[in-house]
Amino acid sequence: MENFEFYSPTCFVFGKETENKAGELVKRFGGKKVLIHYGGGSVVRSGLLDRVKASLDKEGIDFVELGGVKPNPRSGLVYEGIDLCKKENVDFVLALGGGSVIDSSKAIAAGVLYDGDFWDFYQGKRIEKALNIGTILTIAAAGSEGSPDSVITKEEGMYKRGASGDAIRPKFSILNPTLTQTLPAFQSAAGITDIMAHLYERYLTNSTEVEVTDRLIEALLLTMKHEGPRVIANPDNYEARANIMWAGMMAHNNSCGVGRSQDWNSHNIEHELSAEYDCAHGAGLAVTMPAVFNYVYKHNVMRFAQVAVRVWGCQMDFEHPEVTAKEGIEAFRKYLISIGMPKNFEELGAKEEDIPKLVNVLCYGDGRNGSISGFVTLNEDDCTKIYKMMV
Amino acid sequence: MENFEFYSPTCFVFGKETENKAGELVKRFGGKKVLIHYGGGSVVRSGLLDRVKASLDKEGIDFVELGGVKPNPRSGLVYEGIDLCKKENVDFVLALGGGSVIDSSKAIAAGVLYDGDFWDFYQGKRIEKALNIGTILTIAAAGSEGSPDSVITKEEGMYKRGASGDAIRPKFSILNPTLTQTLPAFQSAAGITDIMAHLYERYLTNSTEVEVTDRLIEALLLTMKHEGPRVIANPDNYEARANIMWAGMMAHNNSCGVGRSQDWNSHNIEHELSAEYDCAHGAGLAVTMPAVFNYVYKHNVMRFAQVAVRVWGCQMDFEHPEVTAKEGIEAFRKYLISIGMPKNFEELGAKEEDIPKLVNVLCYGDGRNGSISGFVTLNEDDCTKIYKMMV
Repeated sequence: MENFEFYSPTCFVFGKETENKAGELVKRFGGKKVLIHYGGGSVVRSGLLDRVKASLDKEGIDFVELGGVKPNPRSGLVYEGIDLCKKENVDFVLALGGGSVIDSSKAIAAGVLYDGDFWDFYQGKRIEKALNIGTILTIAAAGSEGSPDSVITKEEGMYKRGASGDAIRPKFSILNPTLTQTLPAFQSAAGITDIMAHLYERYLTNSTEVEVTDRLIEALLLTMKHEGPRVIANPDNYEARANIMWAGMMAHNNSCGVGRSQDWNSHNIEHELSAEYDCAHGAGLAVTMPAVFNYVYKHNVMRFAQVAVRVWGCQMDFEHPEVTAKEGIEAFRKYLISIGMPKNFEELGAKEEDIPKLVNVLCYGDGRNGSISGFVTLNEDDCTKIYKMMV
Repeated sequence: MENFEFYSPTCFVFGKETENKAGELVKRFGGKKVLIHYGGGSVVRSGLLDRVKASLDKEGIDFVELGGVKPNPRSGLVYEGIDLCKKENVDFVLALGGGSVIDSSKAIAAGVLYDGDFWDFYQGKRIEKALNIGTILTIAAAGSEGSPDSVITKEEGMYKRGASGDAIRPKFSILNPTLTQTLPAFQSAAGITDIMAHLYERYLTNSTEVEVTDRLIEALLLTMKHEGPRVIANPDNYEARANIMWAGMMAHNNSCGVGRSQDWNSHNIEHELSAEYDCAHGAGLAVTMPAVFNYVYKHNVMRFAQVAVRVWGCQMDFEHPEVTAKEGIEAFRKYLISIGMPKNFEELGAKEEDIPKLVNVLCYGDGRNGSISGFVTLNEDDCTKIYKMMV
């Protein structure tokens, strides 16, 4: 196990009707003027926005609002949010939504207290400070509610890049599984896929002797394997939603990923797809992961055999571990299809003829030098082959 | 799953030589005058105390010290520590040791900022504020490094009682597995037992539909099952020590215990043993848990069958689940013996003739009304029978 530092100071408030505590929580963390940041009309139609405003009113907390965050959130709205916060002297950003809204909120919170262009943070500059952030999560997926991470797409060049820093960890996150019961099945499935990707990206490690984190990741994968189909079959299943919601947070706050190298190649390869085609990140991952895993599994057959046996219930083929390894990848691929995820470029809306362009942006965009690194280092040729496996 | 709030703001610094960051961390969390609190001579002999002092010196941080914490820490030294902190204007308590030292440090930190008797907190008064606390852990066991809990024994009456509050959560905890390599085998095994008890106390729940936390607890139990004997066989095994150390923290910071009712009867029953006989808490638990489990398993046979199958590798007897349930309890009992733990009152140094007295203190001491409650409510008669099963 490698040396590490782990710090997850977010206060998680979990369960039914917890959104009514928003005002009390903003107050607890010192907020006086709030930006309520959200996406489309669903938080309006569901009445969530009104309930949150009522909760803020009750505590005498003033607010302004900014809607319009789209999936794969863009830098344009971030600039708008930063200007609004400065103009209105906002000191607290409250995100109502999923990963896109939270990531946009984090970018705004960091940008308000920074003199330069907030995009600097997405090109590697350290985030030193940010406005306090709270979240009210409406989809279990990105894990942004408990993470120090944010991913934003810059319109010029369609670069999709991430920034990270303890300063943008939410002070509190409200997790009410009921809020996720109205999600369309496709979005629920995309969220489930994203959570499982966060687990696989940590599972694929070159570190050795990491049993405790291996076991914790497997525990969360087993939970997703069992609860995912229950949610797809019955969207109103509160208990299945609740299990997935906590698993989604635990999958990405890194308590299960400490002390080990991680992969993140699938995320990097997928990011070019959702940036280019504006597909759901989870849907992109569903197409990407099986291809990546089938391309790299020989790098560590026993690791893939382990997850096949412990999570996917495959029988270990002790004479041919690679058979078990591949069985596990195939079981995961079939699982993703079974919950309604796309299985190839066509279903995703991606085009084979774009592959050279995708590879070019992936391997050279935004300061990269011809490859991406993780569990395995992948160069242009590798990435081309992987994208072609998805066609 | 039940509604819950989860907050674990401790910064964990994990790995080799991390104790040298003590000064930097005290500074990061605003400490200017430190009480270094520790137990016996081992932190002196090992050079740990000197390294920590050097680290504080390097940052120009002043300190005083108070050693002498014993296992099952007593209130007497807590009062002494409170007086010392007030006299010396201490603003930060740094615990060097295991659960006893950390729990004593938490009591001191809370007591310094309280006008009344600190024991009030151990009789149910809410802890509102405390001096900042840091820990440098020397044994993986109590989980106090990441918990809001403290257990202290009051000399008059030998009451062993707990207090809890976010204010006494450590600001940082330094976890260097190397520091645990010099522990005697018995202490290592007692620590392993304590960690597994924290997991079982959470596993034994009356809540339903808690798959995510069930799976996480099982993951940590599986880790302990595998890594425990590796440490006993080879005390210098850094990797096994590291896996156990992170498992010990995760077992008790409650990320795996949220949203579910918990048991804690085994801890309550054991506390009277370690208070009366001054035995190691983990050793007392090793004798207590199998008796309690064999007494209560019929309350939920399938729960005990589940842990038997998933953790202890028992084959499920679908026609007679109670057989599987009991096999799992027996596998755990044999495991505890295999790592060197006592198996009965005699090996523990406890006396059968004391049982009426133990039961009386357990069921009526310090405000209780004739029973203890958890997974099952146990009255005097139940507790008497359970103690007799340990003879």
